[in-house]
Amino acid sequence: MSELDRRSMLKGAAAAGAAALAPVSASQAAAPRAGQQAPGFYRYRVGAVEVTVATDGARSFPLTESYVVNAPIEEVRKALQQAYLPPNRMIHHYAPLVLNIGPQLIVIDTGFGPAALKETRGELGQFTNNLAAAGIDPKNVDIVVISHFHPDHVNGLLDAENKSVYPNAEILVPAEEWSFWMDDGEMSRAPKGRMQELFANNRRVFDALGRKVRPYEWNKEIVSGLMPIPTAGHSIGHTSFILSSGMSQLFIQSDVTNHPDLFARHPDWAAFFDQDPTAAVNTRREIYEMLVTTRMLVQGFHYPFPGLAHVEAAEEGYRVVPMPWSPRI
Amino acid sequence: MSELDRRSMLKGAAAAGAAALAPVSASQAAAPRAGQQAPGFYRYRVGAVEVTVATDGARSFPLTESYVVNAPIEEVRKALQQAYLPPNRMIHHYAPLVLNIGPQLIVIDTGFGPAALKETRGELGQFTNNLAAAGIDPKNVDIVVISHFHPDHVNGLLDAENKSVYPNAEILVPAEEWSFWMDDGEMSRAPKGRMQELFANNRRVFDALGRKVRPYEWNKEIVSGLMPIPTAGHSIGHTSFILSSGMSQLFIQSDVTNHPDLFARHPDWAAFFDQDPTAAVNTRREIYEMLVTTRMLVQGFHYPFPGLAHVEAAEEGYRVVPMPWSPRI
Repeated sequence: MSELDRRSMLKGAAAAGAAALAPVSASQAAAPRAGQQAPGFYRYRVGAVEVTVATDGARSFPLTESYVVNAPIEEVRKALQQAYLPPNRMIHHYAPLVLNIGPQLIVIDTGFGPAALKETRGELGQFTNNLAAAGIDPKNVDIVVISHFHPDHVNGLLDAENKSVYPNAEILVPAEEWSFWMDDGEMSRAPKGRMQELFANNRRVFDALGRKVRPYEWNKEIVSGLMPIPTAGHSIGHTSFILSSGMSQLFIQSDVTNHPDLFARHPDWAAFFDQDPTAAVNTRREIYEMLVTTRMLVQGFHYPFPGLAHVEAAEEGYRVVPMPWSPRI
Repeated sequence: MSELDRRSMLKGAAAAGAAALAPVSASQAAAPRAGQQAPGFYRYRVGAVEVTVATDGARSFPLTESYVVNAPIEEVRKALQQAYLPPNRMIHHYAPLVLNIGPQLIVIDTGFGPAALKETRGELGQFTNNLAAAGIDPKNVDIVVISHFHPDHVNGLLDAENKSVYPNAEILVPAEEWSFWMDDGEMSRAPKGRMQELFANNRRVFDALGRKVRPYEWNKEIVSGLMPIPTAGHSIGHTSFILSSGMSQLFIQSDVTNHPDLFARHPDWAAFFDQDPTAAVNTRREIYEMLVTTRMLVQGFHYPFPGLAHVEAAEEGYRVVPMPWSPRI
């Protein structure tokens, strides 16, 4: 055995030892383990528009019977397993967008917000950190467009001190969503639990902003090339968008599905957070049929980062096929 | 029409005008377009090993009749189209790896090298830049393992001045590959054109390093947990690896397939760069059957970045299913 081989074997044995211990002390390594993921942003162009996706993080929690309301948990576990995911846990991914359309910088949805960073020990609320890594200052954002009023979309309007993260931006909200959540009658009739919590959270967020928002109507362009499309069901005023520039189009689906391995593969499944499960399923079927037919690019808020994909028919539902990562834009 | 609407419309018109021009002047925008992709590295753990994938870039070139040697170009175009890729161009992706096993920092394959950055205007040769973004200094690398002797795997051993990029690393090469490419008889018998160019390139690279390499044998661990597996065909000594740590395993396939949308979906297709097409096809079938059966994670050098995936049976071949990006490791 050469000196070199012996040294390698000894090092190998050390590695095997190290493998049994976690965490490994950095002093053993030529270079310490980084322990940190790469910055979570990704860029691409839609015509002349520069899109930046930035992840707000991902959350893993135990799968329960009540997660999918209309399928046995065994079926849900089987779907997760078929997608090479842990069968007893659910993972939610979150990815807001920035559109640089030239004259304006537009954010679509905001993640959980900087306060969540602390509450979740960095698991969620990463959006503004990833914007910083991408060189984007929230102070330069002209417009924030909200797709619907769930905490992972609106809480990021506020920082940890309940101040606006986007002090120079106009906040645009779906008119249908605004009317519903700001209606005191609707609030008083809302079931206890999750729905009342949502009402309270939405009042908290928009009251902190002095309710200074501009409601937008479906099927009327927000700015040139950005068209809000009604995709109600997940919530009363849930909105998707078609971004058009030159010959290119992108369907920004918002929450037409949550995790594609469950709700694209099984579009008839409804999650407990779908406000009107029947409408959510119908919308999903209709939109995904359109995406298959047109082969339009789709950006999914809850697709795994970066969340840019095509949709194709597969068995009882649809397969979401991620676009290859391009090292240059 | 409100002042706000008018301003939006005017801005919108400016955007539409801008869309016709490329590039858009930064002065129009609240924030200039970045025009730059995010750093191309990604981290994950295999047991106690921290893996960093870093892209060397991607190259796009016209698809020709001679690219797939045993299928009509119409079939190849159809496969590209089905994968939502341009039907008349081929895109090659390149992704070397770094393994931090604790006591040692190991690079597997090296990309085209810093010289290619200039030659290709940044398209290729990005590996060391992405390592820098990941905080990894090539001077701290202890071992470089080469899977086979093609330029996208070995040229990155040298910098633009033909000096070693990894001055403190031992260079490990497959014994079979070393014997073949360093054999003067083999070189003299090699067909003119690509094969002779490969011989010349390999001599150039390894001569610049004083031929200071250590040949490794198949099926004998390189270091504890890193096992080289014979997967000949693509080249005479082409090597894959199984990385094992604790209960976790990763199959590092090297070039068992190039682009998965062609050669995983159609494993019987051979590319012009497969040295022994029959052996390459047999190896591919055998390895992919194993990956389907074991559901082992696979890292593909030529998969789109980050290139971590599972393999499942699909029609006449296999579908490569990318693992979801995890915002934390």
